[in-house]
Order: sequence, then C-alpha cells, then structure tokens
Amino acid sequence: MVIRFRDATEADLPALVAMLTDDPLGASRESDDPAPYKAAFAAIRANPAHQLIVGEMEGRIVATCQLTILHGLSRQGMTRALIEAVRVAPDLRSQGLGAALMAEAEARARAAGAGMIQLTTDKSRLRAHAFYDRLGYAPSHLGYKKML
Amino acid sequence: MVIRFRDATEADLPALVAMLTDDPLGASRESDDPAPYKAAFAAIRANPAHQLIVGEMEGRIVATCQLTILHGLSRQGMTRALIEAVRVAPDLRSQGLGAALMAEAEARARAAGAGMIQLTTDKSRLRAHAFYDRLGYAPSHLGYKKML
Repeated sequence: MVIRFRDATEADLPALVAMLTDDPLGASRESDDPAPYKAAFAAIRANPAHQLIVGEMEGRIVATCQLTILHGLSRQGMTRALIEAVRVAPDLRSQGLGAALMAEAEARARAAGAGMIQLTTDKSRLRAHAFYDRLGYAPSHLGYKKML
Repeated sequence: MVIRFRDATEADLPALVAMLTDDPLGASRESDDPAPYKAAFAAIRANPAHQLIVGEMEGRIVATCQLTILHGLSRQGMTRALIEAVRVAPDLRSQGLGAALMAEAEARARAAGAGMIQLTTDKSRLRAHAFYDRLGYAPSHLGYKKML
C-alpha cells in the first residue's frame, strides 16, 4: 500500500474532522457542525504560511498534519516550522504511516528554509512521545496553554 | 515608570538582538552580524500573522515577544495565538513588566479572535515556568524540537 501526500482540499474536510474526533482528547473537543471547520479551512488557505497536509491511501485519508512556517529573530533569524494536529488512522498505526507523514512535513519545512521543526504534544499522549523520540525529536521544552 | 507597547520597527533591531543575546540560552545562539536579523525582520513584517511587540520605557526597549496568529481545524476550527521569544531586560525583572507584556500579547490575541494562547519554554528556565504558572498558563504539553 502506497501513501500519497498532498495539500488538503475542502472536499477532505469531513474525513479530516472525523480523524480529529476519533482521538482520546479530540472526542470531547470537536463538533458535528461543519461550519466552523469550513471557516477555519478558508483561513488556513488564506495564509501561505500554512500547509494542511493529507496522506491518502487507496482513496482514503489516513493521515494528516498541519505545517506552519514561522519567521522570527531568535537563533540568528532562523525560520522554523511548527507542526500541529498530527493524526494517523487508528486502524493503520504501527505501519510507518506516521513516520512517512513526518518525513513529508520535514521535507516541506526544509524546502521552505526552516532550520528547526517544533511541535507540542499533550503530556498524556505517551505513545506520541515514544514516536517523536524515535524520530529524533528532543523533548527539551514545556508547552503551556491558556484559554482566552 | 510607564511601559508603552508598540510594534517593532527595523530601528529597534539592535536593541532586540541585544535582548535575545543577553540570556543564558541565547548567548550561544545569537550573532553580531545584523544581516540575518534584518532578513528575518523583513519576513516577519511580510506576514500579517506575526506581531513583533516591543515594550518601551523612557526611550529604552525593555521587553519583547513575538505573537503569531494561527488558524487550524482542531478544537472546532479554533484560532490560536503562539508566543515566542519572550524577553524582559534582566535589570528590570520582578517589577511586573513581564506580566504587562503578556497581558498586551493576550489582548492582541483576543482581538485577533484567538480562543487559546500557547507557548513553549525550555525545561531549564525554572523562573519562566513559575512566571507562566502565575499568569494562568497550564504546562499541559511537552515541547519537542528537531534541527533540520
């Protein structure tokens, strides 16, 4: 089975929202109403810093993540890439799809001139921690969040 | 003493780079060459998602952070704000400047429609952890980084 990566289209939204919802933390955070997702998708598409990546296998969306290219002064003005909302279909875990997804994101980040890629993951996602450790990510930071 | 917040201009770059350098972690990461910072500043300014905030007191830059507005599908398409590169002048710590800076960033984030604000801080920055805890930020995540 070959996974093919491409940018998401609006037609992918139901599958993407289903993947966000089919998750221990996402289950309580997502909604059946497509309207907020359509609005968010339009905002994502309106800023070229965002790339919403989907992995497709035999016509099915099986993996996704969002890559955002960030500019900043620190580290000698290093361009960095932020990864958010990484998901792999639960029935297809441990087959290398997640690693392929991250490799795609890293290749796109490098192509955009990023010298570093960063992400946060909930402290409760122990399998995710092992996954990122294995891919060479260092858990050097604490990730803080505050609702506004 | 009153701190006034505004968007950074290119004329602020030497002061901003000095603040990034005058830091236990930043000292080894920054450079005397202004060229990469000028290029990064131009990239920051070119994307309206970025706001490079400076706090000025009696003509001196005493605080800075970068706010970035992010769009995404998760959490019902919630707009979020990312804070990076928070710095307060070492000789002016513990006087409320940092809290004022974060309040400015949060107000700007809310004005941009963000429902959440997030940041990462190096695990070694224990004073920063206490600072964010005090301001109501929850250290719910691990922050991973990988050099590309």
